[in-house]
Amino acid sequence: MATEMHYDSYLQLDKILNAQHPESANHNISAHDEMLFIIIHQTYELWFKQLHHEVDSIVSIMGKPALNDNSPELQVVVHRLNRIAVILRVLVHQIDILETMTPMDFLDFRDMLRPASGFQSWQFKLLEAKLGLKFEYRHGKEYYTSQLRSEHVDLIKNAETGQSFLQLVNAWLERMPFFDDEEGWKNFTVIEPSTSEDAKGLLHPFWREYKYRYSNSLAEAEKNNLEAFDEVFCEHRASHYTLSAKANRAALFIMLYRGYPMLQLPFQLLNNLLEIDEQLSTWRHRHMNMVHRMIGTRIGTGGSSGKDYLKSAADKHYIFKEIAQLTSFLIERRKLPELPQLIGQKLGFAAVY
Amino acid sequence: MATEMHYDSYLQLDKILNAQHPESANHNISAHDEMLFIIIHQTYELWFKQLHHEVDSIVSIMGKPALNDNSPELQVVVHRLNRIAVILRVLVHQIDILETMTPMDFLDFRDMLRPASGFQSWQFKLLEAKLGLKFEYRHGKEYYTSQLRSEHVDLIKNAETGQSFLQLVNAWLERMPFFDDEEGWKNFTVIEPSTSEDAKGLLHPFWREYKYRYSNSLAEAEKNNLEAFDEVFCEHRASHYTLSAKANRAALFIMLYRGYPMLQLPFQLLNNLLEIDEQLSTWRHRHMNMVHRMIGTRIGTGGSSGKDYLKSAADKHYIFKEIAQLTSFLIERRKLPELPQLIGQKLGFAAVY
Amino acid sequence: MATEMHYDSYLQLDKILNAQHPESANHNISAHDEMLFIIIHQTYELWFKQLHHEVDSIVSIMGKPALNDNSPELQVVVHRLNRIAVILRVLVHQIDILETMTPMDFLDFRDMLRPASGFQSWQFKLLEAKLGLKFEYRHGKEYYTSQLRSEHVDLIKNAETGQSFLQLVNAWLERMPFFDDEEGWKNFTVIEPSTSEDAKGLLHPFWREYKYRYSNSLAEAEKNNLEAFDEVFCEHRASHYTLSAKANRAALFIMLYRGYPMLQLPFQLLNNLLEIDEQLSTWRHRHMNMVHRMIGTRIGTGGSSGKDYLKSAADKHYIFKEIAQLTSFLIERRKLPELPQLIGQKLGFAAVY
Amino acid sequence: MATEMHYDSYLQLDKILNAQHPESANHNISAHDEMLFIIIHQTYELWFKQLHHEVDSIVSIMGKPALNDNSPELQVVVHRLNRIAVILRVLVHQIDILETMTPMDFLDFRDMLRPASGFQSWQFKLLEAKLGLKFEYRHGKEYYTSQLRSEHVDLIKNAETGQSFLQLVNAWLERMPFFDDEEGWKNFTVIEPSTSEDAKGLLHPFWREYKYRYSNSLAEAEKNNLEAFDEVFCEHRASHYTLSAKANRAALFIMLYRGYPMLQLPFQLLNNLLEIDEQLSTWRHRHMNMVHRMIGTRIGTGGSSGKDYLKSAADKHYIFKEIAQLTSFLIERRKLPELPQLIGQKLGFAAVY
Repeated sequence: MATEMHYDSYLQLDKILNAQHPESANHNISAHDEMLFIIIHQTYELWFKQLHHEVDSIVSIMGKPALNDNSPELQVVVHRLNRIAVILRVLVHQIDILETMTPMDFLDFRDMLRPASGFQSWQFKLLEAKLGLKFEYRHGKEYYTSQLRSEHVDLIKNAETGQSFLQLVNAWLERMPFFDDEEGWKNFTVIEPSTSEDAKGLLHPFWREYKYRYSNSLAEAEKNNLEAFDEVFCEHRASHYTLSAKANRAALFIMLYRGYPMLQLPFQLLNNLLEIDEQLSTWRHRHMNMVHRMIGTRIGTGGSSGKDYLKSAADKHYIFKEIAQLTSFLIERRKLPELPQLIGQKLGFAAVY
Repeated sequence: MATEMHYDSYLQLDKILNAQHPESANHNISAHDEMLFIIIHQTYELWFKQLHHEVDSIVSIMGKPALNDNSPELQVVVHRLNRIAVILRVLVHQIDILETMTPMDFLDFRDMLRPASGFQSWQFKLLEAKLGLKFEYRHGKEYYTSQLRSEHVDLIKNAETGQSFLQLVNAWLERMPFFDDEEGWKNFTVIEPSTSEDAKGLLHPFWREYKYRYSNSLAEAEKNNLEAFDEVFCEHRASHYTLSAKANRAALFIMLYRGYPMLQLPFQLLNNLLEIDEQLSTWRHRHMNMVHRMIGTRIGTGGSSGKDYLKSAADKHYIFKEIAQLTSFLIERRKLPELPQLIGQKLGFAAVY
Repeated sequence: MATEMHYDSYLQLDKILNAQHPESANHNISAHDEMLFIIIHQTYELWFKQLHHEVDSIVSIMGKPALNDNSPELQVVVHRLNRIAVILRVLVHQIDILETMTPMDFLDFRDMLRPASGFQSWQFKLLEAKLGLKFEYRHGKEYYTSQLRSEHVDLIKNAETGQSFLQLVNAWLERMPFFDDEEGWKNFTVIEPSTSEDAKGLLHPFWREYKYRYSNSLAEAEKNNLEAFDEVFCEHRASHYTLSAKANRAALFIMLYRGYPMLQLPFQLLNNLLEIDEQLSTWRHRHMNMVHRMIGTRIGTGGSSGKDYLKSAADKHYIFKEIAQLTSFLIERRKLPELPQLIGQKLGFAAVY
Repeated sequence: MATEMHYDSYLQLDKILNAQHPESANHNISAHDEMLFIIIHQTYELWFKQLHHEVDSIVSIMGKPALNDNSPELQVVVHRLNRIAVILRVLVHQIDILETMTPMDFLDFRDMLRPASGFQSWQFKLLEAKLGLKFEYRHGKEYYTSQLRSEHVDLIKNAETGQSFLQLVNAWLERMPFFDDEEGWKNFTVIEPSTSEDAKGLLHPFWREYKYRYSNSLAEAEKNNLEAFDEVFCEHRASHYTLSAKANRAALFIMLYRGYPMLQLPFQLLNNLLEIDEQLSTWRHRHMNMVHRMIGTRIGTGGSSGKDYLKSAADKHYIFKEIAQLTSFLIERRKLPELPQLIGQKLGFAAVY
């Protein structure tokens, strides 16, 4: 006969609550705060596992070529991206707990941990890679894997070479069909004087018009933003970006016309990416401050220079920064080109009750 | 040769990260959010273990009969009580994460969990008991242990009958020596007209004086607070309180004269107790709201009526409420009796540089 | 020539920063914390003004009879409801600041404030009324306006008798057209055995079918939920609810089928209402605890019994509780009736690229 | 006859709630979010006023030459520093509210505000100056006052040249009398081999001993920390530090022996400084991210390059960083020199009950 389900066994609390073995106990040294140190890292790793669970599910959904805006799954993606941001907020908040450990309390057991170190958290590095952080943008390229086990290095390398979430976002943005609809744009009204901008790769009249209006919105000191505009939105450009010009155009269009039903969830999706980047950034920043407060200029248990490494990583590792920078190219709502009626309808719901 | 310490083995991540076995997988049913449900409960239980680690250390310190105000350990107690409050804040915040699981998402796996239930978290109940929640003040007395394993019931019963932290606080307060110092109080100046209050058990001139001044501070509608005053501070009174009259007097004295060096940490200690009760109360309140939002009037997986039970427990389970109520008996700082000079000196530091 | 815009004048900082006049200064009494007391209440009132700004705009949008699901404005409503919840979270957090004022510090100036009191915050009461709290559900009916100026009482009475946001939500839900679409439901497949439930007011085959499936999902001890089901969703019922049976059906449908594009924002809207209620509830709860910690059983400056009043209000004033209770009537996703294809299409986007 | 005190007039709500005049209204342009923009800045300025109220009171207490460790006022300082940190946490949290304003919503009124700008918040700059940020450490020295009114520039210049809170902390640390007590240290046991370190300015045997033990605790790669040790703690050194060698020694002593009653509050004081710096740092970091998300690479309304300026300021403006760096010079508790019994007694309470 099957035994009844019980809270303890369901949660495997025998494993979870018996996985704390302070090194200080092995040395017969009293170091009360080592338990805190172990448990907070374990909760971080549990949450990292949860973040992987969410990211994996999102990647799997975004990877379906048939995903379109009528799929209920787009809502699922937005919902889970939001959950990721909510979890990251708690992870930031948890630093408050670790800060109740004073440097003297940490010293009670710090040296016993060498050479173990938080740099060995492969789950966090794998998470960055899955989201879209490429090896070439890593701070301390070789260093960051030098302390990992080979099976974890492989996992990360795989994620770095495979399709990241960011690349799937790029592909999804490129699939947006609005501008291929010749019929729909037939009656688009243009106020821009004819120019030879086409050569630079803005083939669609909407974008030529938009660039003209954007140009007018710039203050004198901002005029060099026009070059950046071409870099970001025109086809013939340097290729070191993670988002294609086509994807950037779709993303900007979504930001500009987010009120149309079909663009509402895509807008939320993009906004959630920025929220996630900001929470990751805040986490890195507070983590860096905390490490500095804890060990000053001493070297970390893993042998790193501690704060400096963390600071450089924090400054560089914005995964969705290209999306954030699209903000530079917005214009005021009341100066937006009006969409043709047919396009407007297609961006709405089918029901005509 | 010993292998090098590594982050993974130090944190026993093989155990921690392989302890999630969703029931829905056993049923071949897709229920994405069950992972979240498991992991959030595991992090709660890890933090509960940490809270036990702190409470146990505090109980052990407070239980030393020789603990006095010159002991560095009093600072340790205050520091760890503060840490407990910081942890509880994060536990409250974590509810935000669970609330990203919608009721429909919960339904995907809810019925598979019966009869497991959060009521089976023995760590939380044991924590309440160690802090000082007595069996007779529990809501749903029998019910709350009916679902626990017998070894856990025993642990809780033991904690309930042993010396709780609250009782150790009571004993520590009773040890406060200020009023036994006859010499020190010789020159205490009294403005109160002589009364026969002694009979009620206020033997010390300071307290007769204080009651007189307190009485003068009351608005007409508050005059029945005087009876409460006797209940709380006088010796001959009903005995259903968890703090003795002597302990209450010491606690009030600490609140009134907290500026004196010797009373500074004791004040922080008392204040931290109120902070802990408030965080526990907020946790119970938000937990109740969350359960209501999740299952409405359906019965919980453990068979309980859910919200109603939680609401009653939340309303009743203030562990340190007698300390909170001392606030009712404060008077304005500028109306406080002045302490004799000798007492003032003794409440200060020894150094006379 | 016009003077240049400056931060100070734009924000009218001369007014804002010169509006703090502690009573203690008038009495030549030192009470450092009165400044905190004034400023925190002023920031609360500023945020209340902002909440009114948001609620007024939402009420104005929801009041347009032509509002439909193709309107960009529905996104605006959802966005601003979310903002309201974000603001409320900060208001809850702010209580931490007030709690750094100890009861003794408050006593330094408390009596000088009589009979002024937080009960006189008309903005908060007006906010509750605009959202949908009716006079008859108020705790302490007469009492709550007894201390307000007549012009503010009038504002609140007006809001109570006018169309509240909750009533506009009800009207918007009633306008949902899905079930009037005879053509669309022609091919709806039913497994429920024919019954005479019609008499109870469930005229549409979807709802008869749904009730049948819901009934099957109930545990024995929950069977009386079926009566509640009729109360909530059937036409012929007692009339003391704030949401009509028709509105409740639309709301439940949205919860059940939230994945369809047309139901995504409506689902977010409903979810935001629950979030707002929860934040309001947490605010009331922490406010109550804070008052208790501050004055114990003394009476408040406004003459109220303080904590008891606040507790009763906190227990009763859930504005959107009927929406929260719909959770009781959900069934598992995999047991949901499948929607006819035509209905599914109409709940999607128009574009067929 | 005097009118009764009322909540509205006490808080001057007529001023506070009538100080919002959106520029967009002057231009007859609809920009819903400008109200939020105004109100959130007003609440920031109100909290800045409160922070000044706290800092001024702390500066006034710390400026009293007679302030010693028996003064109740030291507790007041610690309490108010903690309050400052609690307020700063809410100010960080408030950024969440501003982030509900999307870049497009900001564009609705952004250009109307030129050249007003948050750089014109003199209260914040004055706060930094009062705490201890000197002109020469400011990022963008001239720039930061270029937009302020002359009376506010004067206020800031005054604060920069007057005694900052940091300097008062330095003076208070220098007053710590422990090491001048020849009698007390007579029996101090030394294990350090005699050296000629005296020449470098470590005259007291405790510090020679401590340096010896610190030196032994360093890993090979950390040996250059010894030079830093001399820089920080020895008399004959470069003078560009804000804390004197003597003050640094007292601060380190407090961190090392914080358990002794007389060092408990001083330790809390130092810890609160680090907490304040960290909250200020987090505020600057999130503010920078938020500005970047809002305007991208556009120039700010005040004409600044926005994010870059803020980033540089955030990286540089750690006011108490010298105290944070003392962490580099701690050694393990079990390797600390034992204090002579007499010194230990003097660091305790006078009472010998």
